[in-house]
Amino acid sequence: MAVQQRGEETRTRILDVAQEAFARYGYDATGVAEICRRAGVTKGGFYHHFPSKQDVFLEMLERWLEGLDRQLLLMRSGEESVPEELLAMTEMVPAVFQEAGGRLPLFLEFLTKAAHSPVVWQATVAPFRKYHAFFAGMIRDGMAEGSLRPVDPDLASNLLLSFAVGLLAMGLLDPYGANWGLVAQEGMGMLLNGIEAGGPG
Amino acid sequence: MAVQQRGEETRTRILDVAQEAFARYGYDATGVAEICRRAGVTKGGFYHHFPSKQDVFLEMLERWLEGLDRQLLLMRSGEESVPEELLAMTEMVPAVFQEAGGRLPLFLEFLTKAAHSPVVWQATVAPFRKYHAFFAGMIRDGMAEGSLRPVDPDLASNLLLSFAVGLLAMGLLDPYGANWGLVAQEGMGMLLNGIEAGGPG
Repeated sequence: MAVQQRGEETRTRILDVAQEAFARYGYDATGVAEICRRAGVTKGGFYHHFPSKQDVFLEMLERWLEGLDRQLLLMRSGEESVPEELLAMTEMVPAVFQEAGGRLPLFLEFLTKAAHSPVVWQATVAPFRKYHAFFAGMIRDGMAEGSLRPVDPDLASNLLLSFAVGLLAMGLLDPYGANWGLVAQEGMGMLLNGIEAGGPG
Repeated sequence: MAVQQRGEETRTRILDVAQEAFARYGYDATGVAEICRRAGVTKGGFYHHFPSKQDVFLEMLERWLEGLDRQLLLMRSGEESVPEELLAMTEMVPAVFQEAGGRLPLFLEFLTKAAHSPVVWQATVAPFRKYHAFFAGMIRDGMAEGSLRPVDPDLASNLLLSFAVGLLAMGLLDPYGANWGLVAQEGMGMLLNGIEAGGPG
């Protein structure tokens, strides 16, 4: 096995082990020593890959968001209209909930830290701004192809994003409060009604 | 001064003092002894009013939500149509941000606890369910008066609520990321376009 490959495997093992420990015991309650013990690496090995425990968390978050990005980009095949693509994206919602489900306490612990640390805050806010640009681009494409009526892309993107963030927050806080997959799909339909071409203008 | 009135004043002073200390130092870092010192009450006096520090926080949250409720009910004067009332409600957004602004770390600390404690979870989820019922009622009224087209009131209410919660979350996390007051107003306009009578059906 090449040295580089083995390094990659160790890195992945540290991330997997840390993810499980953080979710089970919380971020603060999980020490680097515990992560090393579970991953079967020395502290030297750990710090070779990650400058700190916070970096493990940031990379975990990044891996999760990359998975989401890949799925979102797949939906933008270009074969369907923008409204159809947006509706198709809502079908991801149940899987996102399943993926995120057990991690709510961890997300919240992390957001709490974000409120105190500029580095963590940056890592938290950057994805929102990226998704905002992504949706604004879709809306521009929708206007260009004639499927959406002329709206302010920035505002419409923030409307979509607020809906998505709020839905995710409420679904994680109160999983049995509603059929959140259905709310995503039908809510998006109502929302699209308001911005689709041929709408009330 | 009547004994009852003095008791009420002490209770209010404890709440005010605790609110300031929680916001400044965090919930966990603020002890009952510190609250007593700042409020000028004995521990006996404190526990006469509140069984625990958690009860102080829950009542703080309740006072804040009561203020919000009063404002929401004021908007339902019955003189305007439901779409007009919903648009008018978005004008509250800048004030809500100002009110909530410095308290984001505190909310997050509290939500983190909610994820671990059934009592706190209940206090957190109950307002969402109440607002859901409030908006569903408005939507039913809108359909009855003919200003909204026939939609599922539960779904439309969850759409409105997700939008509101997401907007609040994003505005608190990233205050300078957008003009959130404008997003509220224009986003609600787009959203209403999708459910107003005379829409695309």
